[in-house]
Amino acid sequence: MPQNQIFLQACRGERPARTPIWVMRQAGRYLPEYRAVRSKVSFETMCRTPELCAEVTLQPIDRYGFDAAILFSDILVVFDAIGVPVAFNPAPQVATPVRTAAELEALRWGRAVDHLGYVFDAVRACKQALADRVPLIGFCGAPMTTASYMIEGGGSREFEHTKAMAFCEPALFGRMLERITTLLIEYLGQQVAAGADALQIFESWGAAFAPQDYRVHVLPHLQRLLREVAPLGVPVILFVRGNASLLRQTKDLGADVIGIDWSIELDEAIATVGRERVVQGNMDPLTLLGPPELIEQTAKRIVEQGRAARAHIFNLGHGISRHTDPAMVQHLVDAVRSA
Amino acid sequence: MPQNQIFLQACRGERPARTPIWVMRQAGRYLPEYRAVRSKVSFETMCRTPELCAEVTLQPIDRYGFDAAILFSDILVVFDAIGVPVAFNPAPQVATPVRTAAELEALRWGRAVDHLGYVFDAVRACKQALADRVPLIGFCGAPMTTASYMIEGGGSREFEHTKAMAFCEPALFGRMLERITTLLIEYLGQQVAAGADALQIFESWGAAFAPQDYRVHVLPHLQRLLREVAPLGVPVILFVRGNASLLRQTKDLGADVIGIDWSIELDEAIATVGRERVVQGNMDPLTLLGPPELIEQTAKRIVEQGRAARAHIFNLGHGISRHTDPAMVQHLVDAVRSA
Repeated sequence: MPQNQIFLQACRGERPARTPIWVMRQAGRYLPEYRAVRSKVSFETMCRTPELCAEVTLQPIDRYGFDAAILFSDILVVFDAIGVPVAFNPAPQVATPVRTAAELEALRWGRAVDHLGYVFDAVRACKQALADRVPLIGFCGAPMTTASYMIEGGGSREFEHTKAMAFCEPALFGRMLERITTLLIEYLGQQVAAGADALQIFESWGAAFAPQDYRVHVLPHLQRLLREVAPLGVPVILFVRGNASLLRQTKDLGADVIGIDWSIELDEAIATVGRERVVQGNMDPLTLLGPPELIEQTAKRIVEQGRAARAHIFNLGHGISRHTDPAMVQHLVDAVRSA
Repeated sequence: MPQNQIFLQACRGERPARTPIWVMRQAGRYLPEYRAVRSKVSFETMCRTPELCAEVTLQPIDRYGFDAAILFSDILVVFDAIGVPVAFNPAPQVATPVRTAAELEALRWGRAVDHLGYVFDAVRACKQALADRVPLIGFCGAPMTTASYMIEGGGSREFEHTKAMAFCEPALFGRMLERITTLLIEYLGQQVAAGADALQIFESWGAAFAPQDYRVHVLPHLQRLLREVAPLGVPVILFVRGNASLLRQTKDLGADVIGIDWSIELDEAIATVGRERVVQGNMDPLTLLGPPELIEQTAKRIVEQGRAARAHIFNLGHGISRHTDPAMVQHLVDAVRSA
């Protein structure tokens, strides 16, 4: 039972004494102590070495006293489970994209999570290193976001292969998302079994689809994922980039906490999801490139707006930029703490 | 006076007998006849050769009978006016980014549009070649979108230099947008003087800023541009990518037509801007990678939704993809015509 409970309290809708804060990608390249570790080993090796995962997961907790830790890993490590090689250069690259039924069925779907023992070991290593200071968040990519990397062969601007598959071969696209969703359900279950105190699902590329296409091709799978992880008994945060377009569709899928990106003002987001909901977000990460006064003023505005919700977890509206000065993150934490 | 008036009728809010259609980037790489021209000369040479501009501008008119032509050019040719070299490889690259007051003031701001005679010659060449078949749309980038290329040195994912300037040196950022806006006002004026029948302003990167930052740092300049081009007496279309976040801010700046991107359903967009407004849009361009039935069904749904507005100009919600099969565009045109 973590000593610092305010993040979990907020997740449960109990309004804690102060607004909890953590930031997406908090264990990342903006921190010199992270770069020191990373300079010695590859990103892949870091992900696969539980001790290193624990070391960098704790770095921002030690430095800033964030109210939650998030497992250092990557949404694409699940591809290891099904035998889809992925390289990080540093952008993820999948040398053999999966675009046909034969390619999909040839993957290693049986007992797939058995190949991800290093992730669950990393969860255990983090929990041990944290020694109950703060809760640990496990995570995965949402079904469509995960699938898009397999289909495109990496990141994409237009998602032309993903959308062509959804539009021309909807049954194949649906089958792929169904298989991935099943894998993700097991994957999150094992993270919780290993000790994760909460889960976040990242739909980083939700806005790839127009709202009506998202509803038809993507939403049912995301809904199933949320329904089937609910019985795990830990809070689930759903973060969909593209909130301004997709919030109304994704707000009622069963997530305990609705992550808000920075494309929408927090008070408008709260009005959209309903004041009875718990929200997380949503400062533009690049605000941290501005002067301390701007950071302070923006943080305080967001904390104020967040008071309209049932509970609010302060976060950025996307991962922190590697160009961020760590001193500015301290300003942010101080501003949220004193708001 | 163009023989086909339905596009201009819709711009004026008179509902024409059928829904007019043109598509953004209609003179582009998806057309084999475009690639035939482009294979012989560089993109820069095409932009600077009025006869070639006219040739490719008319290609989609000849092939599909679109209800409006749009000048073949690029939003970044305005950099020629102020002595900022830009290369297209094919992504635009600005070798000497402009990030300081000294760099900004050193540019060639006096009589800048005198250096853009080739654009106005291209407008005249297009008008002559069109021989009053359909109206010709001139265009420019919006102040922030234009500035972002100068500041970043090209396209960007995060716009970190642009936002750092706005946040850390708001006066410099404001001065840059003010200077660019003045240039754009002259530039659009000369396009109209040369014969453009309508204008479109492209805010391609509107969503780079969070809504509250857009309001503070960007909106006043866009508003001034629209106010000062209104007396030119031709319809003005404002297309802001990021509609789902920015539509409420940009709907009342004085544009005759509100361009809608594909991040929002058209009926929701019409409800947001008001049914008394004229809208243009908004099919996801990648729908054209789908089968003919999907294209037809989507086009008809959008035409139906558009009937709720005062008038509706059918368009894509972003530029057409170069991966598009030209036959699918014919399906689209047929579907809109018969809807």
